[in-house]
Amino acid sequence: MSGKVAARKEALREKLVDLAEAQIAKGGLRSVKARDLAKDAGCALGAIYNAFEDLQALYMAVNGRTFRRLGIMAAQSVEDVQAGPNERLIIMSEAYLGFAAENTNLWRAMFDLEMSTDDEVPDWYLVALAGLFENISGPLSEIYPDMDAESLDLMTRSLFSSVHGIVLLGLEKRISGVPPEKIKIMISMLLRQIS
Amino acid sequence: MSGKVAARKEALREKLVDLAEAQIAKGGLRSVKARDLAKDAGCALGAIYNAFEDLQALYMAVNGRTFRRLGIMAAQSVEDVQAGPNERLIIMSEAYLGFAAENTNLWRAMFDLEMSTDDEVPDWYLVALAGLFENISGPLSEIYPDMDAESLDLMTRSLFSSVHGIVLLGLEKRISGVPPEKIKIMISMLLRQIS
Repeated sequence: MSGKVAARKEALREKLVDLAEAQIAKGGLRSVKARDLAKDAGCALGAIYNAFEDLQALYMAVNGRTFRRLGIMAAQSVEDVQAGPNERLIIMSEAYLGFAAENTNLWRAMFDLEMSTDDEVPDWYLVALAGLFENISGPLSEIYPDMDAESLDLMTRSLFSSVHGIVLLGLEKRISGVPPEKIKIMISMLLRQIS
Repeated sequence: MSGKVAARKEALREKLVDLAEAQIAKGGLRSVKARDLAKDAGCALGAIYNAFEDLQALYMAVNGRTFRRLGIMAAQSVEDVQAGPNERLIIMSEAYLGFAAENTNLWRAMFDLEMSTDDEVPDWYLVALAGLFENISGPLSEIYPDMDAESLDLMTRSLFSSVHGIVLLGLEKRISGVPPEKIKIMISMLLRQIS
């Protein structure tokens, strides 16, 4: 592929990710229609499948971007904070709650995208995920300086999943819906226990 | 409504819940078709909407049944167990993981059913939910004998949501998927911290 063609393909990929992201933010994953994307991007329908293997790959690109945003946001939330590790975990979790409440559709898309067990998770996706997890394993390694790497990894996933569960069910009133202030209390009650 | 008519309506409701439950277990929430239900129940399509206000109400009935099963299963898992409260919470959580792994579609339906914020959550549903939560608040009140009722309720929801999050993301490989044995470790790592 010549440099010019590659650059054009990359520009189209970017544009399609922008458009899909905006549509998911507005109406959720299921509202994305390839035909609309092509129209808005000013390309032929087939060009989408030249830029991305399928719509699933396009959604993964949007989700990867959201994961990176989350990682950056988590890091920024404690950037200038002088506080112990538990307190920093709580601050990051509250930032996570804020992100989920304000970007509910983009946030849900990260978890609602169904993948068959045969699908390969792309490497860049795992990198974005690892970047997000590093924000948690840092403070955790201060709480548990002697913990081995594998246990630290499991504890990191355990806490991320826990906070995710509290935010998820807390934002949905039919299971355990409570006002956002209560969600914050539930998060800090849990994270203060980690010692 | 005469007693006979009411009994017939109740029998049809039961049959429809049975059929919807079986279909959800097989193919998930989205696979349920009113036309198929009517055919299998041997009734007219309109009779479904005489028995239930809408399909949403039917799904809620299935989910309520699943919640009750979960509550009973949680209670049974620690029935003959002589162990401290943390250990009992861990045993119940492992039962929850087992249920989710074996009845994934029914379990997901409890959380995937979308409800607008205007929808009323029926009282019997909240009762089933409270029954499930009681299994958690019991051991918790042993760990925190002096905790006030509101904090105990929030801590109960916090832990249920946490274990749910660990099970949910653990069973899905793209986020934090790990083998079931690791999911158990993640659960017990967290619950041993509660003190």
